[in-house]
Amino acid sequence: MLTPNVGGDYDMDSLRSLGESGIIRIMERALGSSQRDAIGFGDDVSAVRLTNNLLAVFKTDMLVGSTDVPPGMTMRQTARKAVIANVSDFAAKGVRPYAGLVALGLPANMTTKDVQEVARGLSRGAKEYHFPLLGGDTNESKDLVISISLLGLTPRRKLILRSGAKIGDIVAVTGDFGSTSAGLRALIDEKIRPERLPRDLAKAVYHSDAELDVGLKLAATGAITSSIDSSDGLAWSLHEISKMSRIGIILSSVPISKAAQEFAANYGYDAVDLALYGGEEYRLIFTVKRSLLRTAQKAIGGRLRPIGVVTKRAEGVRLSEKGRDMKIEMKGWQHFRS
Amino acid sequence: MLTPNVGGDYDMDSLRSLGESGIIRIMERALGSSQRDAIGFGDDVSAVRLTNNLLAVFKTDMLVGSTDVPPGMTMRQTARKAVIANVSDFAAKGVRPYAGLVALGLPANMTTKDVQEVARGLSRGAKEYHFPLLGGDTNESKDLVISISLLGLTPRRKLILRSGAKIGDIVAVTGDFGSTSAGLRALIDEKIRPERLPRDLAKAVYHSDAELDVGLKLAATGAITSSIDSSDGLAWSLHEISKMSRIGIILSSVPISKAAQEFAANYGYDAVDLALYGGEEYRLIFTVKRSLLRTAQKAIGGRLRPIGVVTKRAEGVRLSEKGRDMKIEMKGWQHFRS
Repeated sequence: MLTPNVGGDYDMDSLRSLGESGIIRIMERALGSSQRDAIGFGDDVSAVRLTNNLLAVFKTDMLVGSTDVPPGMTMRQTARKAVIANVSDFAAKGVRPYAGLVALGLPANMTTKDVQEVARGLSRGAKEYHFPLLGGDTNESKDLVISISLLGLTPRRKLILRSGAKIGDIVAVTGDFGSTSAGLRALIDEKIRPERLPRDLAKAVYHSDAELDVGLKLAATGAITSSIDSSDGLAWSLHEISKMSRIGIILSSVPISKAAQEFAANYGYDAVDLALYGGEEYRLIFTVKRSLLRTAQKAIGGRLRPIGVVTKRAEGVRLSEKGRDMKIEMKGWQHFRS
Repeated sequence: MLTPNVGGDYDMDSLRSLGESGIIRIMERALGSSQRDAIGFGDDVSAVRLTNNLLAVFKTDMLVGSTDVPPGMTMRQTARKAVIANVSDFAAKGVRPYAGLVALGLPANMTTKDVQEVARGLSRGAKEYHFPLLGGDTNESKDLVISISLLGLTPRRKLILRSGAKIGDIVAVTGDFGSTSAGLRALIDEKIRPERLPRDLAKAVYHSDAELDVGLKLAATGAITSSIDSSDGLAWSLHEISKMSRIGIILSSVPISKAAQEFAANYGYDAVDLALYGGEEYRLIFTVKRSLLRTAQKAIGGRLRPIGVVTKRAEGVRLSEKGRDMKIEMKGWQHFRS
């Protein structure tokens, strides 16, 4: 995805100043009138009604070599990551991928070996999450492009949107944050060689997993009121839930991974910033009915980490922990510019 | 799509020497084992079973700026063409698109106006064929990339594959061929300026249509045994039906457009070659049960043009008309190299 058009030190040329949200607004304006009882732009997935009760869930996410591939990532890892990014969105909605397609744009200097590695990475990703990649389209292009589309099915009332959070709900996540952005900072800003990256950071950058099982289990509880994946970063994703649900969020803590804390201490970074303003990290962020918190906890055990509460819209998105109260900005990870 | 790896004067660097068919073989080998009662690689669309009788039909086709956009084509026409290419595959299978998604890769030097024009072209294409574009993904990339995915539904027994042609069937098409390749030769080889292109050639290159209504009507007759769209050229598409159906094809004529004949005469081209070895032309090529030819003709009137018969595999794919008998090669259009 494109760098969001808020905060940060992005260039002011035309496309970047327009930003992803500007582009999406243009697309919505042009395409919005054609909606047919559907979930369109603005959530992790799209959906159309098949029958009164059944939705086809439909998602496309494109990986681009020049902006989405960190230093040291192999072709196989890159192709697998393209799968993970799509599966993670299905995980957040509580929907199992039923089948996938892949459209490839391949630079002319790729070797047969490279193509085989792309195929293996795609295959591995699809097998890990138990769906077939059925077909696709191959093209020559200047940039490496791996565009995956997923199809799933879900009962209409079971699809968890970004827009269902209610005042009083508990805000929770499925794990720690910051390892991916620490790993990326280490590679890009600190010029640490990929093979010298601490193991947990390398795992986060090169071989992250999508939390599909956790997402399916959570959805099955009926306790979840809204959900999103954290691929655009914790802060950005909280703001998305805030915007779509028209509520505020107050965090009582930011769950930071040990590896991110160590990296922050060793290299002089703010660990909270790493955890809040990262991206490419595939956790789930969701809200739970307070009365059903135990049910949700039972369903996924220790993976459920309460981090805050849903409040009135006017309160905004804030972190309020012992000794500090700060606004959480709506900004995310800056992509790998080449 | 990538230039096929047969015939023609393609470069011998690695990716091009591997070719699309080589890449697809690698993908099939890696991904094929994950098939779940599905139609996978090797047809115009993919499909998975939803119920005993109902298939979800699923398709992705990527347009790449550096290889798929001829000189003089506007952003709006380009985006519309990305839609048309996908709809044409659905047309060949007799399936109505139910919803679509779009993933965009946009070069950083695009303007807001460009993005608006892309949105308008997408919207126009989707409206012409009466389906909603529900959502998508936007990215920054070095090349312009428009990757469309379509979803449709069809009764299992109604889906028309490439593989059903039987000896004795009539081979037919829905119109003339050659205008697109004549237009592209005019623009690229003859350096004719876009605004001076003869009107029929300009229409073929910049604003071709997908034959969805014709395809749906044909499918409803039950008379069609195999079908493909001609986006890879007439010759290539006939060979695909031959290969997938394990039959031979003998054409008694090649339907050449008047505009292509005029261009060929004026600029010293072989009109038959233009019609056979073109591409980016969205006609339907299909086989009809001989006993039901009248039924199919009634369904689409003058749009059904018989051009040959299905024979034994050993006969290959040939043109046998008054005074000449020639092998039709398996080659297609060479893309716009920049």
